[in-house]
Amino acid sequence: MALTDIERVARNEDGIAAVLGILRQRYGNRFQTGADIRRQHAHTTTYIPNQAPDGVLFAESADDVQETVRICADHRVPVIPFGTGSSLEGHTNAPGGGISIDLSRMNRILAVNAEDLDCTVEAGVTRTELNEYLRDTGLFFPIDPGANASIGGMASTRASGTNAVRYGTMRENVLALTAVMADGRLITTAKRAKKSSAGYDLTRLLVGSEGTLGVITSVTLKLYGIPQAISGGVCPFPTLDAACRATIATIQMGVPVARIELINALGMQSINAYSRLDYPVSPCLFVEFHGSESGVREQAETFGEIVAEYGGGPFTWTTVAEDRNRLWKARHDAYWAGMALRPGAQNLTTDVCVPISRLADCIAETEADIAEMKLVAPIVGHVGDGNFHVMLLIDPKQPDEQRRAEEFVSRLNMRAIAMDGTCTGEHGVGQGKMSYLRHELGPAVDYMVAIKRALDPLDIMNPGKVVPGVR
Amino acid sequence: MALTDIERVARNEDGIAAVLGILRQRYGNRFQTGADIRRQHAHTTTYIPNQAPDGVLFAESADDVQETVRICADHRVPVIPFGTGSSLEGHTNAPGGGISIDLSRMNRILAVNAEDLDCTVEAGVTRTELNEYLRDTGLFFPIDPGANASIGGMASTRASGTNAVRYGTMRENVLALTAVMADGRLITTAKRAKKSSAGYDLTRLLVGSEGTLGVITSVTLKLYGIPQAISGGVCPFPTLDAACRATIATIQMGVPVARIELINALGMQSINAYSRLDYPVSPCLFVEFHGSESGVREQAETFGEIVAEYGGGPFTWTTVAEDRNRLWKARHDAYWAGMALRPGAQNLTTDVCVPISRLADCIAETEADIAEMKLVAPIVGHVGDGNFHVMLLIDPKQPDEQRRAEEFVSRLNMRAIAMDGTCTGEHGVGQGKMSYLRHELGPAVDYMVAIKRALDPLDIMNPGKVVPGVR
Repeated sequence: MALTDIERVARNEDGIAAVLGILRQRYGNRFQTGADIRRQHAHTTTYIPNQAPDGVLFAESADDVQETVRICADHRVPVIPFGTGSSLEGHTNAPGGGISIDLSRMNRILAVNAEDLDCTVEAGVTRTELNEYLRDTGLFFPIDPGANASIGGMASTRASGTNAVRYGTMRENVLALTAVMADGRLITTAKRAKKSSAGYDLTRLLVGSEGTLGVITSVTLKLYGIPQAISGGVCPFPTLDAACRATIATIQMGVPVARIELINALGMQSINAYSRLDYPVSPCLFVEFHGSESGVREQAETFGEIVAEYGGGPFTWTTVAEDRNRLWKARHDAYWAGMALRPGAQNLTTDVCVPISRLADCIAETEADIAEMKLVAPIVGHVGDGNFHVMLLIDPKQPDEQRRAEEFVSRLNMRAIAMDGTCTGEHGVGQGKMSYLRHELGPAVDYMVAIKRALDPLDIMNPGKVVPGVR
Repeated sequence: MALTDIERVARNEDGIAAVLGILRQRYGNRFQTGADIRRQHAHTTTYIPNQAPDGVLFAESADDVQETVRICADHRVPVIPFGTGSSLEGHTNAPGGGISIDLSRMNRILAVNAEDLDCTVEAGVTRTELNEYLRDTGLFFPIDPGANASIGGMASTRASGTNAVRYGTMRENVLALTAVMADGRLITTAKRAKKSSAGYDLTRLLVGSEGTLGVITSVTLKLYGIPQAISGGVCPFPTLDAACRATIATIQMGVPVARIELINALGMQSINAYSRLDYPVSPCLFVEFHGSESGVREQAETFGEIVAEYGGGPFTWTTVAEDRNRLWKARHDAYWAGMALRPGAQNLTTDVCVPISRLADCIAETEADIAEMKLVAPIVGHVGDGNFHVMLLIDPKQPDEQRRAEEFVSRLNMRAIAMDGTCTGEHGVGQGKMSYLRHELGPAVDYMVAIKRALDPLDIMNPGKVVPGVR
């Protein structure tokens, strides 16, 4: 991604200076302006350039968020919410400067309603903190995007990940949330009823709005009973196509797989090297099944029969927790393993999602493109949802390689859209996918802009992301 | 409901006269202005007064809808979409007059993508038409609000019904839709990818917007494999409380029940009389389980053990389709059976939803209220979701009874809200629940109004519903 492709946001120097003074005065040490802290609060995970905010406010309550938003609104200064900084499309960047609101100190579990299978947490709670807290209740929160992201950040980007094929995404699992809107008011979008037809779905509007309509301060989530039994395993395939077709068959047969993850040969090579494992260096599916003891055995056996029809196997699986944990640790380390494939490389991780019937074709064309364009790029995917990621490892000293990588991403996004899919299955739009949104949704984007204008008329909420500027 | 409680919408007589002339000229017989047809296209199902539109356009394509909306926009005349007219909160009424767009002729199945478990249908297709069409594919569409509603209407009101406890509501089952917006443009809100984080969730914003933001013209839906086996049955309980507590235990134990419906003693009495059955006249749960042959047996047996702990039983169940169909026919006829309890009565059907832990208390207080206020009102509910309906049968000649019924509904809605629930689980806001929306969601309603203003600045899209007028 070239800096020139990023939506420009004009800096309001006078406003910023005024806000810096007010926040320093008001919050003392809780407001930081050191260069390192500012840089850490902008984008750090991929090739998208770091654009630091002018200051970072460590919020401890919704009141802090409200007050900071009001001060910024008074001076027309951008507000950029920050969870853990693990997003991949530039969501935390400050292209026009402004104030990063770090929500990590808002990490209280506010309520666990075990009888209702729900809980309410502050936005800064991370998913592993939540699951550790829940351990004794027999419940868990399934959404797992890989990174130990904050629940607020996951809601903001409509995150999903490995378990979504069974449990849905943040779209399906947020019951309600509270958010500070651009005028500084705090709203609650819904009550805790499992379903409601009470007015416009502000919950779903804020989920995935990436901080551009409001700052999420707490989230009410659905929880699930920890399965009685879990089985999981790894299955190699002779070709990527065979692995994709086995995935399609598994979904279409209605096997309620909890996770079904594809890693291509290059990805497997990187995992073996990084985690000192000896998996076959060929495309593999990592799978997991949740249910009763007999249920998970039945699912694993059915899956074994399906993969055999596509030439896959041997499918080795286990119900032993340590073995499963090692397997999923390796899968979750795929990001770092990929980075280690080419030390010093810059990482451009991109994500698309297509109807599952098109998955094998989309991945095949994508792998051919990688080869043809002489790029180094492992593929991993939540293939049960038709969603996959390409991790481009780019030598920053080779401008031609950068150019090819940009061309590759453009072709990948347009390919997914042409297959009736989306340019982003779970990473969000941020800065990186803005130019593709209109290709995908055409005039619908105008109504997104109208909503942005209506709810954030001063364009201070994470400007330069998702939809074009409205100032 | 008193007419005075309904949001007033000023009539634009000049505009209406102009539009009537244009539509007559343009559409001939497809545009109707007879009194009977107009009355049939306004609210007819409950106590809410009928407010007829000035004319009815029978649309045959999205083009017709676009053109009609544009003509109405030019003259600032309301547009009210109409599916089958089975909604319960006044959604199809025309409080300021205007044009009803009847979508029933837009009843083509546009695509069934069996491999992707989805389909796209025009808005006027009804749910039974869709399921009949799908029969040979081995797939089905589970959402079942009772009435044979249109898919567009179900999307507009965020409908759900008996199967939602397992398959979710229209919120979870609409992948994408097309809609004609207030400026006459047609948008597609999403592609067919199973998940997406591409911008604001316009799909979920339009689902449940009740025609106030746009007219839905087609819907892409998730489909499911027809279960290998289905078991179902009826279980009586000594008290309503016992039935509620058995429901709560079933959900909390994670039994993946497909339907779990409560009918109170008065409701059972009405069903027996109407359908010539001899069920016990005590609170009953109607349940259904979907899965493999062994799975549905296991679920039914587990349920039998749970209900016994709460004094329920005998639980008689069957896998025979005819027996199940008779059972669900009786459940679906509960509306008509209730009406037959008190011939000549007006019907005020209302709907709330609470967190399941509060269900037993909410229903107990509600039944006590019915008795105390000397009302005739069977209770039926999709209790697995914490959702139930009260069907008030009111003698129209007794103003005092009407007053008590209104007071009862107010208390019921406020009770549900106080229990962290919603004033409408599935019927929508329409005209009937507008005054409760702010009690439930407070300042969040202001942002709904802002969205309405932004997307429908002339307030022509089904005005007088959901949010206060913006003209």
